[in-house]
Amino acid sequence: MTEIAAALERALPAGRVVADPDVLASYAHDQAAWAPYEPPAAVVRPRETAEVAAVVACCAERGAPVVARGAGTGLSGGANAVAGGVVISFEAMDRILRIDADERLAVVQPGVVNDDLRAACAEHGLWYPPDPASSPWSTIGGNVATNAGGVCCVKYGVTRDYVLALEAVVGRGEVVRVGRRTAKGVAGYDLAGLLVGSEGTLGVITEVTVRLRGARAAERTVVGCFDALTDAGRAVAAVTSSGVVPSALELVDRYCLRAVDDWKQMGLSDSGDVLLLARCDAPGAAGDEEAATIEACFASAGAAWSARSTDPEEADALFAARRLVYPALERLGPVLTEDVCVPRMLVPEMLARIERIGAEEEIRIANVAHAGDGNLHPLMIVPPGDEAARARAERAFDRIIDEALALGGTVTGEHGVGLLKMRGLADEAGPAVLALHRAVKEAFDPAGIFNPGKVFR
Amino acid sequence: MTEIAAALERALPAGRVVADPDVLASYAHDQAAWAPYEPPAAVVRPRETAEVAAVVACCAERGAPVVARGAGTGLSGGANAVAGGVVISFEAMDRILRIDADERLAVVQPGVVNDDLRAACAEHGLWYPPDPASSPWSTIGGNVATNAGGVCCVKYGVTRDYVLALEAVVGRGEVVRVGRRTAKGVAGYDLAGLLVGSEGTLGVITEVTVRLRGARAAERTVVGCFDALTDAGRAVAAVTSSGVVPSALELVDRYCLRAVDDWKQMGLSDSGDVLLLARCDAPGAAGDEEAATIEACFASAGAAWSARSTDPEEADALFAARRLVYPALERLGPVLTEDVCVPRMLVPEMLARIERIGAEEEIRIANVAHAGDGNLHPLMIVPPGDEAARARAERAFDRIIDEALALGGTVTGEHGVGLLKMRGLADEAGPAVLALHRAVKEAFDPAGIFNPGKVFR
Repeated sequence: MTEIAAALERALPAGRVVADPDVLASYAHDQAAWAPYEPPAAVVRPRETAEVAAVVACCAERGAPVVARGAGTGLSGGANAVAGGVVISFEAMDRILRIDADERLAVVQPGVVNDDLRAACAEHGLWYPPDPASSPWSTIGGNVATNAGGVCCVKYGVTRDYVLALEAVVGRGEVVRVGRRTAKGVAGYDLAGLLVGSEGTLGVITEVTVRLRGARAAERTVVGCFDALTDAGRAVAAVTSSGVVPSALELVDRYCLRAVDDWKQMGLSDSGDVLLLARCDAPGAAGDEEAATIEACFASAGAAWSARSTDPEEADALFAARRLVYPALERLGPVLTEDVCVPRMLVPEMLARIERIGAEEEIRIANVAHAGDGNLHPLMIVPPGDEAARARAERAFDRIIDEALALGGTVTGEHGVGLLKMRGLADEAGPAVLALHRAVKEAFDPAGIFNPGKVFR
Repeated sequence: MTEIAAALERALPAGRVVADPDVLASYAHDQAAWAPYEPPAAVVRPRETAEVAAVVACCAERGAPVVARGAGTGLSGGANAVAGGVVISFEAMDRILRIDADERLAVVQPGVVNDDLRAACAEHGLWYPPDPASSPWSTIGGNVATNAGGVCCVKYGVTRDYVLALEAVVGRGEVVRVGRRTAKGVAGYDLAGLLVGSEGTLGVITEVTVRLRGARAAERTVVGCFDALTDAGRAVAAVTSSGVVPSALELVDRYCLRAVDDWKQMGLSDSGDVLLLARCDAPGAAGDEEAATIEACFASAGAAWSARSTDPEEADALFAARRLVYPALERLGPVLTEDVCVPRMLVPEMLARIERIGAEEEIRIANVAHAGDGNLHPLMIVPPGDEAARARAERAFDRIIDEALALGGTVTGEHGVGLLKMRGLADEAGPAVLALHRAVKEAFDPAGIFNPGKVFR
């Protein structure tokens, strides 16, 4: 047992500290397997905020790194363990503390799984919108730490838009509550918003209060099939120009469709090369008009075929398939996941540049995208064990980042900086803004223990 | 001419520095006349960002306070001048730099008046939602600095929800750009969101990029008239419980109605004691259903009468009257403006407590409220020259703050902390969170020059 593990054993009730090396190894990294990691010196599974505060205090005394971890579904290495560090896993803090239907808010522990919260809200006729592809597994704490997006955020916004208040452990173990429970409030700095998306570098989140919406009208689904990626990109631009705000506008290419088919035998890839999956949810006749407009946009951009789905089960299956893209591709070998976001009208141009980079670097790049947001996820697929291909994939990854910045975009739309986008963030932010980051981190983390070496240096 | 004014004269092109004492006096305070202020040592009217940076550098060298000012319509003293300080007025930086209909964003200088931006967007079929009552006069820079709310934010959110990116001068004159122009982005800390609502204490905003929405469907208006404030409060709670999200839900009491009538002869106060003005904007039949639900809620709470307005001009006149409440009351003498926000379901209870405080302190308290948000604006009206009444009004002001906190509310829903809510913020945030505020301010403002003595100490 490491010295820090022994110290944590003394500081916490029995059964919280994991020291078994095999178990430790299972907490060493998230799903960005290409990012560096070390086995942690200890893993703790606290049951309440006071225990988290004790862990942080113990680590602050010793200068030991603290890495908070939800379900480990991150794709940027943000939850990867650090040498000599302690991983705080929130699997035992997974309770929904309160759902208030009148005030439309929920109070949850960070370990609650996204889909579990959504299901509990639905029982009250309420809806928690943020829906990352990882929603069956990922936790609200992780979603908050990375400001997770998802499919419906093209219309309904991202995690930050739903976080009202947070409890967190900062500094050397101080428990703070920031934000509010009212619909509005401007008392002081938006420290809750600042903690959202800070990827564990400012403190450890121990409780989350989220805003909820009322359940919405049934969605309509429009499917379009295109022969070329750039045609699909033009269809996305057409929808944007039309003024309709879809509640989903997803792009899935043939590589992704085939990978899901090979795994789940869904017959998706028979229909064509690139699918656009759109949804809209205006109530009543307005929703029919939205669906008709989207279909017309698909047709005008040269869709091989397009249709409004009349079968809700079929429509749900298509979106379920989109959710399975990551695990399906990972079955084929190492996958390097991009996450750039460009101005919406530049989606066709960015897709063309990605195709060119793939051809030049001789790397198969599969594309899945929250296309309505301009948020693209090119997926670099490498044959297992092919080190040369891996190096080319990493070069393609960097080139895609550069092209996104050249188009006025950002290096990460929703996955976070973690380890994989640190160079990109430095380029995007520039020295003066990075200096502000360092100063803000120092304000929250004077001991320099919260997820050190991640996001920026 | 003061020493700092002379230094600014040397640092800036001709015609930027105001030193005439009479003109200086007109920049000494915002509309919170009860908050302390000093005549500024100088006023500058920069024309571009580089000039703002030069002003900040000049002030940082000398340790001179910098107070940014929009139109001076603030109600908390946030823009009040500080002894020996420089007021930066943005009246000459009032250009709309770009409206991008495809990406649905606008780039503006901070001195653009809110209504002017809204009008310019409307020409493109677009909509900038935040609509504070001051929108005919207040500027986007001021709106951003205070995270201004307004009438439609019950459905569409506040200024922070629409700020994509900011340019600001921080530190000792460094120009930084924070935020993004894409629909999504998680590259680094949300420093743009942190600057929103920071009331000039972290830096000076020099350019604002805002998100826009498409023009929405025509609104329907429902008016309800109630005999008692608490009945109106129960109607608000009923609307909240119904699940309908109105696009406006305003409360105006008889004192406010009479003050507007006395000024503008609109005949508003003939109809009853408390008006609720609701709007809804779902398209088509769904909007009719929303309006019917709201009317039923009004009736169930005991409305003396309620009606769906069939005359758009009449409906607009009612909302215009609501906007005139502040200036109308200010004609009668000093007005101390409250701005608390409580959980929506507690609006009736909070209104009852306000009535009790008014009775006990023998102060006439008029009420106007963004009731659907739980954001109440009790207005303490004092006879001119009555110092005893003024002291009682200040006591009532403090008691209302305490009651809002006791109900789980916040001391300021949308006006900001400025000078009037500093005690309230300290009580609401507590020492650990205030310490974080100080550390964050130090990160942005190592020279301690940005709006010192405001918001917190």
